[in-house]
Amino acid sequence: MISTEEIQFKLDPLLEQNSIFLMEFPLSKLLLMNDANYPWFLLVPRRENVVEVFDLNEDDQSQFSKESNYLLQKLKTHYKARKMNVANLGNMVPQLHVHHIVRYEKDLAWPGAIWGVVEAVPYSNLEIESITNEVRSLLASF
Amino acid sequence: MISTEEIQFKLDPLLEQNSIFLMEFPLSKLLLMNDANYPWFLLVPRRENVVEVFDLNEDDQSQFSKESNYLLQKLKTHYKARKMNVANLGNMVPQLHVHHIVRYEKDLAWPGAIWGVVEAVPYSNLEIESITNEVRSLLASF
Repeated sequence: MISTEEIQFKLDPLLEQNSIFLMEFPLSKLLLMNDANYPWFLLVPRRENVVEVFDLNEDDQSQFSKESNYLLQKLKTHYKARKMNVANLGNMVPQLHVHHIVRYEKDLAWPGAIWGVVEAVPYSNLEIESITNEVRSLLASF
Repeated sequence: MISTEEIQFKLDPLLEQNSIFLMEFPLSKLLLMNDANYPWFLLVPRRENVVEVFDLNEDDQSQFSKESNYLLQKLKTHYKARKMNVANLGNMVPQLHVHHIVRYEKDLAWPGAIWGVVEAVPYSNLEIESITNEVRSLLASF
């Protein structure tokens, strides 16, 4: 059942511009950041006027934590990550969004954080199609 | 009641070197990063061999989420933050630790992430004493 709040939910225009829609979890949209430098995903709960994780109500906090941990575990195994990086920064885009990034010892920013290190490299359409299919099937068991 | 696991828990030497102990939550140690550039705190669950949040068992995940959200909410109000930044990176120190950082529009890294922007500025002993007292009393209601 979709609530009125969810029908009204509008993704922030800057997030929309820089990412590709992958799928919906019960609470959150899963987006792929359009930057081929890192396997870099965003979870965005479909709730209006939520800036910090603690602005979600308790049920949503718990649901969000399930979705985030499921995503992290699946991505870590599938992409053979050295480490997963998870962050809610939101200094530029206030709408709550949490970064889930697959990190490797050979990636461009290792062992630092990825923000501000190199310019984003957009994916090709072929790459987008392939990652979308791959990730949807990886996460089908939620 | 303190479990055997907790008695055996040893803080990672690099975390120990770069931070100041503030207090214990039921699950996690609260540390202050020794960098006066930002009000910057770490939560470290007292569990061995835990690298990702999903490595915690379900009860611990839920407890950790409570401690983290309580801390965020208290810090945001008390320090009049523009935004809280929360992150588990752990590329250098594998022991699970989650950054909780108070951000201002006038801070040195705004609106970017704080990692790798400026060298850490250690606190004076007087500042450490004052922040320790302030934060312990701020968080006494948990």
